[in-house]
Amino acid sequence: MIDLKSIKDPSFVKGLSKKELHELCDEIRSFLIESISKTGGHLSSNLGVVELTVAMYYVFDLEHDELLFDVGHQAYVHKILSGRADRFDTLRQYNGLSGYINRKESKYDVWESGHSSTSISAATGLMLGGDKRDVIVIGDCSIMNGVAFEGLNFLGQFKKLNPIIILNDNEMGISKSVGALSKTFKILRGSKLKRGTKAFVTKVFPNFVPDMCHSLKNFLKAILKRFNVFESLGFDYYGPYNGNDLNTMIKVLKRIKKNKKPVILHINTIKGKGYLPSEGDKIGNYHGVGPFNVETGKPLKDNKDMLSYSQIVGKYLVEKRKKEEFLVITPAVKVGVKLGEFAEAYPDDFYDVGIAEEHAAVMAAGIALRKKNVILLMYSTFAQRAYDEILNDIVRQDLKVIIGIDRAGIVGEDGVTHQGIYDVSMFMSMPNIVVTMPKDEEEAIGLFNYAFIQDKPIVIRYPRASELKKCDFDYDYVASLDWTTLKEGSSAIVISYGMDVEKISKLCTEKNIDAMVVNARCIKPIDEKTLDKLFKLNKPILVVEQAVASGTLYHKILDFKERNSYTARVYSHGFSCDDLIPHGSLADIYDLVGLSNDKLLKLINEIIEK
Amino acid sequence: MIDLKSIKDPSFVKGLSKKELHELCDEIRSFLIESISKTGGHLSSNLGVVELTVAMYYVFDLEHDELLFDVGHQAYVHKILSGRADRFDTLRQYNGLSGYINRKESKYDVWESGHSSTSISAATGLMLGGDKRDVIVIGDCSIMNGVAFEGLNFLGQFKKLNPIIILNDNEMGISKSVGALSKTFKILRGSKLKRGTKAFVTKVFPNFVPDMCHSLKNFLKAILKRFNVFESLGFDYYGPYNGNDLNTMIKVLKRIKKNKKPVILHINTIKGKGYLPSEGDKIGNYHGVGPFNVETGKPLKDNKDMLSYSQIVGKYLVEKRKKEEFLVITPAVKVGVKLGEFAEAYPDDFYDVGIAEEHAAVMAAGIALRKKNVILLMYSTFAQRAYDEILNDIVRQDLKVIIGIDRAGIVGEDGVTHQGIYDVSMFMSMPNIVVTMPKDEEEAIGLFNYAFIQDKPIVIRYPRASELKKCDFDYDYVASLDWTTLKEGSSAIVISYGMDVEKISKLCTEKNIDAMVVNARCIKPIDEKTLDKLFKLNKPILVVEQAVASGTLYHKILDFKERNSYTARVYSHGFSCDDLIPHGSLADIYDLVGLSNDKLLKLINEIIEK
Repeated sequence: MIDLKSIKDPSFVKGLSKKELHELCDEIRSFLIESISKTGGHLSSNLGVVELTVAMYYVFDLEHDELLFDVGHQAYVHKILSGRADRFDTLRQYNGLSGYINRKESKYDVWESGHSSTSISAATGLMLGGDKRDVIVIGDCSIMNGVAFEGLNFLGQFKKLNPIIILNDNEMGISKSVGALSKTFKILRGSKLKRGTKAFVTKVFPNFVPDMCHSLKNFLKAILKRFNVFESLGFDYYGPYNGNDLNTMIKVLKRIKKNKKPVILHINTIKGKGYLPSEGDKIGNYHGVGPFNVETGKPLKDNKDMLSYSQIVGKYLVEKRKKEEFLVITPAVKVGVKLGEFAEAYPDDFYDVGIAEEHAAVMAAGIALRKKNVILLMYSTFAQRAYDEILNDIVRQDLKVIIGIDRAGIVGEDGVTHQGIYDVSMFMSMPNIVVTMPKDEEEAIGLFNYAFIQDKPIVIRYPRASELKKCDFDYDYVASLDWTTLKEGSSAIVISYGMDVEKISKLCTEKNIDAMVVNARCIKPIDEKTLDKLFKLNKPILVVEQAVASGTLYHKILDFKERNSYTARVYSHGFSCDDLIPHGSLADIYDLVGLSNDKLLKLINEIIEK
Repeated sequence: MIDLKSIKDPSFVKGLSKKELHELCDEIRSFLIESISKTGGHLSSNLGVVELTVAMYYVFDLEHDELLFDVGHQAYVHKILSGRADRFDTLRQYNGLSGYINRKESKYDVWESGHSSTSISAATGLMLGGDKRDVIVIGDCSIMNGVAFEGLNFLGQFKKLNPIIILNDNEMGISKSVGALSKTFKILRGSKLKRGTKAFVTKVFPNFVPDMCHSLKNFLKAILKRFNVFESLGFDYYGPYNGNDLNTMIKVLKRIKKNKKPVILHINTIKGKGYLPSEGDKIGNYHGVGPFNVETGKPLKDNKDMLSYSQIVGKYLVEKRKKEEFLVITPAVKVGVKLGEFAEAYPDDFYDVGIAEEHAAVMAAGIALRKKNVILLMYSTFAQRAYDEILNDIVRQDLKVIIGIDRAGIVGEDGVTHQGIYDVSMFMSMPNIVVTMPKDEEEAIGLFNYAFIQDKPIVIRYPRASELKKCDFDYDYVASLDWTTLKEGSSAIVISYGMDVEKISKLCTEKNIDAMVVNARCIKPIDEKTLDKLFKLNKPILVVEQAVASGTLYHKILDFKERNSYTARVYSHGFSCDDLIPHGSLADIYDLVGLSNDKLLKLINEIIEK
């Protein structure tokens, strides 16, 4: 038995026999299932690349070659093999092992990302600036994003660089892969190609001598394979090979290592390989998991009575669609934003466009130009990819796209690259757009209903939280954008939005704190009438927001104060633009950034006492 | 002779004979040259698509089909044919005809863009939401951008929609096209393909019966053509055809109109066709032009003694490179940012990556991770495309990329989609990055030199202006980031950056206005020490910036005031987030937005008198 925790660096793998390498794969797979079942994390993507990663460590010399993992959530095996198995019990916890590539953890962690599809461009830069050969692992969904294509297009003509791009084709991104390229991959995968070629040849040369026909068939097959999209972009294409077959992987990687040209190696792997529940998962439920029971595959925490905002929005859209027509677009986060039920009930009104945020935004704008209602659901952090398209194509043209921003604010375990703390700055600087955030589930529905009956591009932000108590909602409730007072008080005024404002209101009530709490559910435009009344009270104002304080509510309130010559002091609890917020449980990170109950109370009391 | 100004709507073209259609093309070409020589505008791209656009108007029925022009600067012929020839004397002027698609101008202007490569996604949305068939004209450079690829990838598998995508392949974007796809296009263009096939067939079947060989050759050619990148993405591919041949275009478009599947029509056109100086231009000098002499092709305004910031930065980089190694990356704006001389002198250190801002940013990050100096030069408005990559890949990783932001602030004639007024908000919300803007050419050099000797990602913004007096510069001058007083005064304080601060300082001196003028050449981080001294003077402060006031200098100053309990009044002259700034001459637009000398003086005097 191999003790994974005894692995100190990549040299370990080099010393193993073929038999031991197979044992190592088994050991890693068991370790991943066991370990992730306790901590949660990215299960399926890592189970799929066990043999590939072991083979990479066996074939490449990490002092001269370097490994890049696109996105980085499939790098757990790499973390084990570079000497970090002993820290897996701290995975994705505060001060623990990151769930992504992290240069502070290891010198073998080369390129940090978190967002998909940057690895090819990164390798281009790294190879231009250095003297190592880069070996990239990128998924079939990630390679379909615009920036990956831009990278391929550059590299394919450049010729001076020779990275090895391993296309890990598991027919899944976060969920099932879509797009024309995925069809191409399917053809390359084999069966269809053979059938197609045969039919074609038989049709064109029906009476050809069988022998010649056979040669010709192979010849044509070679041509057909050669002229795939990668060859036409200038790469040497190898594949497809079984990426879960260790011997094949070692053999192929050795051969490819000798090729001095830019290479695409196309491998097929089974996402979730080796663990029955994840291997059978075609939806993406085991892409990212919480702690689970290894025997049953079921989550340890029984969430039956709890709903996340994502679930409520997903459910709401199903109910809403019964009464009104609209289209829903999402870029590859169908599972995360809980659109499964909607997609099943209204397949013709639902578009998962793959990891293509830019396309999603422009396509939504096109639909909206036709005066059709359209919902665009994205994660806050991934919406950054569509900044220009949201600005230029949606809001500059003042088109009514209803943008649901999921994972707004602190996200917890995914950490620094995934924090939803920039979108407020992003949206607040744009013309025409209305920016809102509900204090609770009911208000989320109310704001969506409001979005439908108005005419502007509108953002509705909601957090990752999944601690909401399930209850029956009034799906017809329409919220106004006016600010409301959640709790009266006379010593200070707290203005906030989202779950924070609800939490602060309850907290101040519980603890008998004499602060007024105001729900600023719409932060663009701000409710100047209410704000004016608040300033006239001349009490200290605290603005709490889970966002970098740059152009956000705090700044708008300061601007209002300045323009109207008010004197009440205004305090901010947002993040500094220079803050980078690490991974950890929501509770740990809330505490770290001063948003825990205790720290919020302390802050409010300090302001009252000033 | 056809009077273009008599054209009222698309029906005009329908009634013409073949002979008249040819006359129409000649007439349009003369009109474009004559008209643009007076107003300036996009010359070459429009001269290239005369026959194509006339053929489109002849073949398609614009009540049932609709035309989309990617970017939109090649839509002048469309503007003429839809009845706007009589307004061409106002082209790109304030309240005049826009240089891009503008829905307010005509019901035949369907999709506004300004930024490249969105037309395919837009057509997807428009066709999903409506019942017209979209016909898109997109250039060979624009189709290589990420969002265009995302659109193709979606459409190619979707099958339910059947837009016609006309790939206008002129081997040029703004300047010469680059990238692997452009090589593919070259192969498709013909000669290479034939030669290659022949050699291949001769090698494999040297003794084959000639007749069979001939059939096989054609057969293989068909396969080779079929398996180009577009076919592999699921489109029916037609081409390449001569797009400057009117008869061919009419014939082909008629045939394609009958095809009910999504279609790519690949045409070759000559950018600048029909006007000798622009036809021979392989650099891009005639892409966008100022008024010029039709006889000579030379600009009317003799700029020999004037330098733009772009020219100064381009020249500086050449000088700097003599002393120090670094790489320069630019996404398709080599001509605009004046990198021609650098590219020629240091071809191995220069990368024009095509219209691929995302790739450019990540590649720069990769180089910087190797501790090599790298300069990334972009236009402000196009930098928006790389928002996520600048945030996640460059600045989150605190990598020293020197980002030169050209066309910062008001851009004039290009108008609303090109205004460089969002990048300040964008950069100010990001971690680690230093944001600067020089008051003049010397300071521009000084800030670049400063950028080299420090360790952070840094932005140096500079405007489009080209009225600078040529002079000898000290290329070794290093600027500090400290704010400096340009002019003393005791009744008010004006804080600004860039050309505005220099202008205001001179203006106040000239007009004897008792205002202190402070050059805030670095706006992130702000110079708190100087700002503190200024607040202690307790004079009204006016902040002038050519940016939407969201998280920008005005907000940072308000925040500083609030945190330090100062009382001096602060006024802002930035733009509201909801302002959309139209096209027009710089002078007209400055006046419109209150940045003309008169309006600035009036504002400063008002503040002093308050």
